[in-house]
Amino acid sequence: KNHNDDDNNKHTDDNDDDNNEDDLDLDLASVFVSDAQFNRNIFFDSSPQAVRLYMLYNHWGLQVTLYIFILVDLSLALFEEPAVLPLPLWATMSVELLCVVVFMARLVHYAKVIPRDKFWKDPKNLSLLFQLTLLDMLIYGSLRALDCSGVRWSRVFRPLLLVNITEGRRLRQAFRSIRNALPQILLVFLLFIFSILIFSLMALKLFSKRGLRTTDGAPYFTNFLQIVFDLYVLVTTANSPDVMMPAYNSSSIFSIFFIIFILVNVYIFMSVFLAVVYNNYKKHLKEEVRQLVRAKRHKMARAFAVLQQKSGEGAEPVVTHDRWSRLVRRVRPDISHAHKELLWSVCDPEEKGVIGKLAFVQLADLLNIEVITVKQRPHPLQNLCPALYLSKPSRLLSSIVQHRGFVILFDLIILANAVFIALDEENPLISNSEWFFLVVYLLEILLKLYVHEPRGFFSRHNFWNWFDTIIVVAALIATIVNSALKSSSGYTSRQVLDIVFILRVLRLIRVVDSIDRFRAIINTLIRIGPAILTFGQLILVVYYIFAMVGMELFQGRVQFFGPDSEAPERVYCGNPLLKDTAFARHNYCKNNFNQVVASFVLLLELTVVNQCSGFSLTTHPAARLYFLLFHITVVIIIINIFVAFVLEAFFVEYSVEKSDLQNSVEKKIEELQLGLEQNLVNSMETMDSENGPKKRPALLFKIASRRYRTVDALIQRMFENDLNPEDFNEDETNGNFSNPTFNL
Amino acid sequence: KNHNDDDNNKHTDDNDDDNNEDDLDLDLASVFVSDAQFNRNIFFDSSPQAVRLYMLYNHWGLQVTLYIFILVDLSLALFEEPAVLPLPLWATMSVELLCVVVFMARLVHYAKVIPRDKFWKDPKNLSLLFQLTLLDMLIYGSLRALDCSGVRWSRVFRPLLLVNITEGRRLRQAFRSIRNALPQILLVFLLFIFSILIFSLMALKLFSKRGLRTTDGAPYFTNFLQIVFDLYVLVTTANSPDVMMPAYNSSSIFSIFFIIFILVNVYIFMSVFLAVVYNNYKKHLKEEVRQLVRAKRHKMARAFAVLQQKSGEGAEPVVTHDRWSRLVRRVRPDISHAHKELLWSVCDPEEKGVIGKLAFVQLADLLNIEVITVKQRPHPLQNLCPALYLSKPSRLLSSIVQHRGFVILFDLIILANAVFIALDEENPLISNSEWFFLVVYLLEILLKLYVHEPRGFFSRHNFWNWFDTIIVVAALIATIVNSALKSSSGYTSRQVLDIVFILRVLRLIRVVDSIDRFRAIINTLIRIGPAILTFGQLILVVYYIFAMVGMELFQGRVQFFGPDSEAPERVYCGNPLLKDTAFARHNYCKNNFNQVVASFVLLLELTVVNQCSGFSLTTHPAARLYFLLFHITVVIIIINIFVAFVLEAFFVEYSVEKSDLQNSVEKKIEELQLGLEQNLVNSMETMDSENGPKKRPALLFKIASRRYRTVDALIQRMFENDLNPEDFNEDETNGNFSNPTFNL
Repeated sequence: KNHNDDDNNKHTDDNDDDNNEDDLDLDLASVFVSDAQFNRNIFFDSSPQAVRLYMLYNHWGLQVTLYIFILVDLSLALFEEPAVLPLPLWATMSVELLCVVVFMARLVHYAKVIPRDKFWKDPKNLSLLFQLTLLDMLIYGSLRALDCSGVRWSRVFRPLLLVNITEGRRLRQAFRSIRNALPQILLVFLLFIFSILIFSLMALKLFSKRGLRTTDGAPYFTNFLQIVFDLYVLVTTANSPDVMMPAYNSSSIFSIFFIIFILVNVYIFMSVFLAVVYNNYKKHLKEEVRQLVRAKRHKMARAFAVLQQKSGEGAEPVVTHDRWSRLVRRVRPDISHAHKELLWSVCDPEEKGVIGKLAFVQLADLLNIEVITVKQRPHPLQNLCPALYLSKPSRLLSSIVQHRGFVILFDLIILANAVFIALDEENPLISNSEWFFLVVYLLEILLKLYVHEPRGFFSRHNFWNWFDTIIVVAALIATIVNSALKSSSGYTSRQVLDIVFILRVLRLIRVVDSIDRFRAIINTLIRIGPAILTFGQLILVVYYIFAMVGMELFQGRVQFFGPDSEAPERVYCGNPLLKDTAFARHNYCKNNFNQVVASFVLLLELTVVNQCSGFSLTTHPAARLYFLLFHITVVIIIINIFVAFVLEAFFVEYSVEKSDLQNSVEKKIEELQLGLEQNLVNSMETMDSENGPKKRPALLFKIASRRYRTVDALIQRMFENDLNPEDFNEDETNGNFSNPTFNL
Repeated sequence: KNHNDDDNNKHTDDNDDDNNEDDLDLDLASVFVSDAQFNRNIFFDSSPQAVRLYMLYNHWGLQVTLYIFILVDLSLALFEEPAVLPLPLWATMSVELLCVVVFMARLVHYAKVIPRDKFWKDPKNLSLLFQLTLLDMLIYGSLRALDCSGVRWSRVFRPLLLVNITEGRRLRQAFRSIRNALPQILLVFLLFIFSILIFSLMALKLFSKRGLRTTDGAPYFTNFLQIVFDLYVLVTTANSPDVMMPAYNSSSIFSIFFIIFILVNVYIFMSVFLAVVYNNYKKHLKEEVRQLVRAKRHKMARAFAVLQQKSGEGAEPVVTHDRWSRLVRRVRPDISHAHKELLWSVCDPEEKGVIGKLAFVQLADLLNIEVITVKQRPHPLQNLCPALYLSKPSRLLSSIVQHRGFVILFDLIILANAVFIALDEENPLISNSEWFFLVVYLLEILLKLYVHEPRGFFSRHNFWNWFDTIIVVAALIATIVNSALKSSSGYTSRQVLDIVFILRVLRLIRVVDSIDRFRAIINTLIRIGPAILTFGQLILVVYYIFAMVGMELFQGRVQFFGPDSEAPERVYCGNPLLKDTAFARHNYCKNNFNQVVASFVLLLELTVVNQCSGFSLTTHPAARLYFLLFHITVVIIIINIFVAFVLEAFFVEYSVEKSDLQNSVEKKIEELQLGLEQNLVNSMETMDSENGPKKRPALLFKIASRRYRTVDALIQRMFENDLNPEDFNEDETNGNFSNPTFNL
């Protein structure tokens, strides 16, 4: 706060500060702006050194390095006992030590950036994590040196790194929203468990004395805890209808019991879980977004305070165009001058040359609106040989390629290709047809490149052009490699062939893009993609923890013998306890916790249907608690939050069209007659108009209206209708948004 | 419209019409009001005879009769070939004929009520249904007379009766909302199928040449259509992880294929389906409710037009208190005079004695607010023997029973009871303990009856009091019957014992009610109960149609042999094609389409997980289409709509507290000091205050604030925030709400 006041005085008193000081101010302001833009909430020291260090701290290179080391640290599980690829202990230990050193260095860097007192309040989790890791490594290393067996228990904490680093804000947010929903979920869960207990008691009384047997010949529904577990598994639908068959076979009347059970526990309770999770998620997210928006406005106000100048006595402080433009160049060096001027004209519609606080504060959001700048260049061939490129046949070719029929033709070719792929490739006619299709697809891309300006064709936003080209070129290379291998050694590599097949099939996806209505759905899915990544991290954290615990608990209980193995243990997964069980009979032996990859696959299977009979048989009935806990955590909580997120994202897509700010940018683009027609990069038409009377500007803009630079922008848009854009003065005074980093 | 104008003239011209004509007016107005109250949209003739007939048409007795006959008609499936209880053909045929006659009579009644031209436009579906039924009966009867086999195809249409009768409005609404969502669902479904086809093609290319085998020894993933179907079933999670195991066993890499498949098709696409269904459901429901509210206001305005009187030249037309009160008595004869006066004072807060149109229009909604009238009677024992009942020990007893500790004590007793139930009942100590618990529970009820006024204790809204008493008394009777049987014949009837056990366990549910937070959730569930009934009807219609078709297609393909049967066919369900299949091995033989009950149970199982290998094996691979269609209809569409409804209902519960109108009634109750304290019927306290200085009124009111008389009221409340209460003048002019009856 002090620093701010200093700044204020400085700027109003003397307008002619030297360049160096001005640079420092711009540094500080640009840090505030980019913090606001990316919703970073780090309370950094505002001394010049700390600001420079902070800018370095936020450098993408260092962040990528950090994530790479986290990845290395997490993937150590592949090489440690029980390993997929065993490495000696010293190797994994030293890599882990290196990782810890890197994380510590990052933490020290962080400590230099933020004030000392703030530091010791916040990142205690992280340093505790390191201390625990080092302690564990020490204990485990010495135990192993003494040839004792030990447990690497600190591995369970590894994924928490993803949560606790400064960049894990969204993940922390997801965890917070789960934590806030927990009391409500717990309430419904208790009721749900009560219902299962009541049904189990009823089942015990109804069936235990009837002497029924399951298909395995085991007594049916005689043990209360076994019944509770069986009925819980029925809720996950894993043992339906097997669990009901013995009772149903003995009398049709008993089906009523199971029908009521399924209705109450599967349909009603599961819907109620979704409702509770969804409701809490929405409520909590709204609050989070409100805080984020407040923090953002506060940061922008601080940036304004650094840059502001008073035009006269009693006049409102303003920021000049010159300073604003230098600020923007510093924050986003990649955007073009024209784009910058466009943004300025949105902020300063009356062309006063200065903007006030309210207009300045929009900047962070303006920078998040993705404006595609299209340089209206003529086609390179036109420069090279204008006479030929503009000749009549060439123009005819262009109009053919741009015709709707061209798209339909290629859709038909793709469909024909699909049929050929489905047919047997042993037939030489069919295997040779692949060359024909490859040539046709290549030709299509070349034709498009002939018509469209190459840099426009391969601009960052043309997802499908990139997709097409990469798939076709990769398929071409793979096919050539495959036939080269075949002709040189007579040997067909199964792996290469697999890749060829996958690429061929992927090419078919293109057909979706040419149908408008499908494209809309696909685009929504692509758009929520980045946000789904947050859930991916969430799932990774939970899976990793469960995999580590599961490996310690169940490692080696179930053995997998390769399909060629002749060992007699093969039929019962190497564990005599599994003899004649459904687990062994279904050949589930590879569903085990013997190494980390198998554990992850098994956990995925458990997410879909929770079937774990094999592990409770080989260890102890209490092992079921692990599976129960997994089901509650992943299916009841996380999957429901995921569904809630997808629902909310689709509702936003259906209801809100564009934000106000986007509209104002778009209006400005239209005003300035810089808009681009729907037909994305149509250089041919421009060619015509360049010859015509109306000279069009060489630079056009287009809003990538339905894409978001950041996930936060999407989430923010979900709730922005409820936020009052004017309440920012109030926020500035009660600056009570603490630094939420490290507050898991 | 003409009739309205006539009425207007009549009433303004001569105020002294004779009683008879006044009665007719009141009839007409009361019909309009009760139509508005229950959202009936029947455009009836307004001639006196038609009005009388229409009142008869809406009589609850006739409606119940109609539903009983529909039930009889539907349950004919139990007795027709293939029958659960076979009856001769002439018996079922004549019952069906009787049903059709009853339905026809109802239709003729309806034809008398509504104008001729409207009739021929609307109920053509229904009469077509009868013609088809009669035609089918004729054909089938003559075929059977000639000893030929025939198909009773009209049975498929039977459940449509539920939809097409005038009372099936909510069901039609549900079907309409499904129909409106269909185009959007279809779009996503096509994309989903495309995705499955792409994955299947990839699976064909990757796995078909590898020579893999399933656990059954069948070739794995070699036939394209088989792959498509297997992957579709994987989406229903029925064959997870079996379908993946052969590939996963051959190489871990292939798990990536299945992981991506599950992620895309199970999690993302299923969420998108829910989002699309939910969004369309919400949008459509909003529109429906808006139309309903418009129609309701229009009807109330017409009722007002019938009853209105002009107080002077140019003055607004009004309705007097006298007429209003006679109208209410006619519409709801069951409500008390005091309740009626309460409603009047809400409509006429300034006590002018007359109300205008706006106040009058509220009446329909006011009648839907459930106000509980509690007659503040002294306890009968107090009348009988006041000295004893008001003595010190009696008062002490009362305060003990009303103490929180009393509830906790009985919760503990219930828990102890639960433990005793779970223990083995062979032990004489434990089987005798049941008598102890029964006596304790009876004592509890008697004590409560001693303290609370019996009629208040058993009032209609005290769900849990009723529940307790019925369960305890029933358990007492069943236990006595059981021990009487045992002591007289030494023989224990399993059926009686089952009932005893179920009643004992049900008693335990009571414990939920004493925990406030659980009660809130349970109450929400009870409240959405009636609306869930609409979904129950929807499911019934769909199940019935699928069951009828399934019985024709698959009847007798799979045979069930009782557990005591020694027939060799038993191990393969009586069909050699099923030898050594998983279907027979799991003992699924009773999952068949051989009669209607088994079909319904099987369809429920298919709803949970879609496993149908047995039927495609015994008939033709194309039989899978039936199962696919069932999954799409029930799981993708109807279950999602159900989930959407539960979600919406819970969100309403979480957000909206009370409607404005309810608040105004409640305020009025408070104003008049007729409110009841939280403590429901506490005659003891009143006793005290009667002795004290402040005499309390003998009649108290309480709003059953969170219950709804009709399902529509709940749905309407879901969206009433979006409806403008004042836009009713506009509606009256453009009366374009057609009669939605029979418009499926």
